[in-house]
Amino acid sequence: MSFEFIENGTVTTPEGFLAAGVTAGFKRSGAPDFAMVVSEVPAEFAGVFTSCTFAAAPVQLCKKRVLESDFLRAVVINSGNANACTGEQGMASAVKSCEIAAQALNIPAESVAVASTGRIGVQMNMALIEKGVALALPALSRNGGALAAEAIMTTDTVPKAAAVKLQFGDKTVSIGAMVKGAGMIDPNLKVPHATMISVITTDAALSKAQLQKMLAVNADCSYNRITVDGDMSTNDTVLLLANGCSGVKIAPDSAEEAAFAEALLAVMQNLAKRMVLDGEGSTKFVEIKVINARSAEDARKAAEAVGNSLLCKTAWFGNDPNWGRVVAALGYSGAQFDPDKCDIYFGNIPVVKNGGDAGTPESDLRATVKEREFTITCDFNDGDAEYWVWSSDISYEYVKINADYHT
Amino acid sequence: MSFEFIENGTVTTPEGFLAAGVTAGFKRSGAPDFAMVVSEVPAEFAGVFTSCTFAAAPVQLCKKRVLESDFLRAVVINSGNANACTGEQGMASAVKSCEIAAQALNIPAESVAVASTGRIGVQMNMALIEKGVALALPALSRNGGALAAEAIMTTDTVPKAAAVKLQFGDKTVSIGAMVKGAGMIDPNLKVPHATMISVITTDAALSKAQLQKMLAVNADCSYNRITVDGDMSTNDTVLLLANGCSGVKIAPDSAEEAAFAEALLAVMQNLAKRMVLDGEGSTKFVEIKVINARSAEDARKAAEAVGNSLLCKTAWFGNDPNWGRVVAALGYSGAQFDPDKCDIYFGNIPVVKNGGDAGTPESDLRATVKEREFTITCDFNDGDAEYWVWSSDISYEYVKINADYHT
Repeated sequence: MSFEFIENGTVTTPEGFLAAGVTAGFKRSGAPDFAMVVSEVPAEFAGVFTSCTFAAAPVQLCKKRVLESDFLRAVVINSGNANACTGEQGMASAVKSCEIAAQALNIPAESVAVASTGRIGVQMNMALIEKGVALALPALSRNGGALAAEAIMTTDTVPKAAAVKLQFGDKTVSIGAMVKGAGMIDPNLKVPHATMISVITTDAALSKAQLQKMLAVNADCSYNRITVDGDMSTNDTVLLLANGCSGVKIAPDSAEEAAFAEALLAVMQNLAKRMVLDGEGSTKFVEIKVINARSAEDARKAAEAVGNSLLCKTAWFGNDPNWGRVVAALGYSGAQFDPDKCDIYFGNIPVVKNGGDAGTPESDLRATVKEREFTITCDFNDGDAEYWVWSSDISYEYVKINADYHT
Repeated sequence: MSFEFIENGTVTTPEGFLAAGVTAGFKRSGAPDFAMVVSEVPAEFAGVFTSCTFAAAPVQLCKKRVLESDFLRAVVINSGNANACTGEQGMASAVKSCEIAAQALNIPAESVAVASTGRIGVQMNMALIEKGVALALPALSRNGGALAAEAIMTTDTVPKAAAVKLQFGDKTVSIGAMVKGAGMIDPNLKVPHATMISVITTDAALSKAQLQKMLAVNADCSYNRITVDGDMSTNDTVLLLANGCSGVKIAPDSAEEAAFAEALLAVMQNLAKRMVLDGEGSTKFVEIKVINARSAEDARKAAEAVGNSLLCKTAWFGNDPNWGRVVAALGYSGAQFDPDKCDIYFGNIPVVKNGGDAGTPESDLRATVKEREFTITCDFNDGDAEYWVWSSDISYEYVKINADYHT
């Protein structure tokens, strides 16, 4: 039951899913900005969302769907307008967006979920939703996943989709996913954590309870582990749809369920890593591992402090093996540990031994931080808990993108 | 008993203080890098320090002085080497630095405090301390404050010193101060908070208990309110020395003490503001005020989230009145408030009303964020607590400075 990645896999790789990506006119650039993902049959589903107090109207509506709807048939997504901080009118617009899509697809409005990303504080232009649905409807296809992934991008430089397949006896189960998100990404969140929208599809059959548990656990080990700039969005949405079209039913607490969960995690980690690599202006992928900590919470605080440290991130951009900044971040993280026991490694090279300089020549360290990807391991030698995060550097380009971005 | 600022005031403005700033050779650039501040008579003193787990050796030694020494006669400061993460040898170096200065000045070693700033993880070159003391000793003067302020700079672009005087009947009391710090500055700290070293002098007579209380309270309303990049250092040190040379004794809980505290706060706020204005690559000074919050803690979380938000900071750099990013930061801050009651102002201009767009034309908002200095007020309309922080923008220059800095 081991899984394998499918080349050019998308949300339409699993059986019974159709998708489309079209230009409705939300983006001034004329780039695709409206996506639909449709299941040919009712799909069980689960969702995790931003914990931001100003959760956008579409997020509030999706939460309602998770609580009240028995199944989903479609997800509509627009980029270019977040429909956040838009009050009652914004909520009415989110509801109306679902109704427009439901009418076109001849399905119940309660079986449609909606996600939006883009500028905050601007009311939705409903004519553009009408136009998006009208254009997407005839374009829906079994090959539409790639276009859908493109249509949900904002500051992303590349579309991000993936799929895996698992063999269960003579039957094949697929899991497909797409994600948008490249900035405003932070792990400091309970389920979930990022300016990101992700739709995950599978043709296996699972219950809502199974899906919800699996999604929350896996988000915590993938999308929740990435940090680009420490900010979090009003609109983060992750939806997982299971339509059963493969004919494979996954029983709770079975070996099959464990195999499925592992494959799902692989897809989500694949996309999480690509979000970091596509972080706004990012030139580095840095894994921060804290090991042998007193508690998982100490390990988490320490790893996130390093992963979010602007001084570390700018040092990485400058190929500077400045471990003093790592030490400073660990020190102010709030994690409990004994600084005199702390060892730090860049890759496999010891940098700090017992809280002081390990004596490695700077040229050796510089070779490591010049890599596109490297790992920083902080060994507290003080327990057995661990945590990791994925981070990126902060470049001139990051500042430029975010100083200039107005959608 | 109102105070007034003294033009070109420094730590040597108060009676009985001498200072010097010289080039000992810690900095490769050849710029001044060693300072001494000396009181002609024993001075009562107090200190607040970094809460970083990896507190540098000089910080640990200063804390010991505060606990164990009855008075200070001198403070020695070097820039170019932080003497942090240097283990037992580092502590021995800090002790030895005090001894070298004490011998030269013919005073007890326990009456000398030491502060260091610069590269982490490098052992001190004690020959340079010897040289610094030898050069500084003959240079000590009543006009040396300005040179001392220059010698403690690292990435600072300008030296930062100030002084005020207060009239008590026919006697004048002065308070002088200097500070270094322009990056790695964050308010998320208990007493204190920043990569900064500050020495404050006064010729009034106060007890250690008075000084310690006043310093902690005032640091919390000045140095603790500034945020440049959310990082904190291993070496933050604030020392306050009172030598009584004015002949004015300030009684505890008196009107005179209140007036003195107010003047001290003015000096510390003046320097705090100048640290933000001198923030690495900063082009803006932004005051974030959260008012009418449910609790001071809610107000603090909200103000710090906005002040530390990279997305807000890059928007300010870009003169972009993007209030969506302010809203997002408030939303993920962890502060408890009702988003539907939240109003936001840029300067005096309403931007958000009841959690949604206030309808002000973007051109009006843009005029405000184009200013060198402006205030963002977040009114939660949900209580009577408030908090403010001072922040700056993040520019290309910030990234450049921190990607390239190796001391």
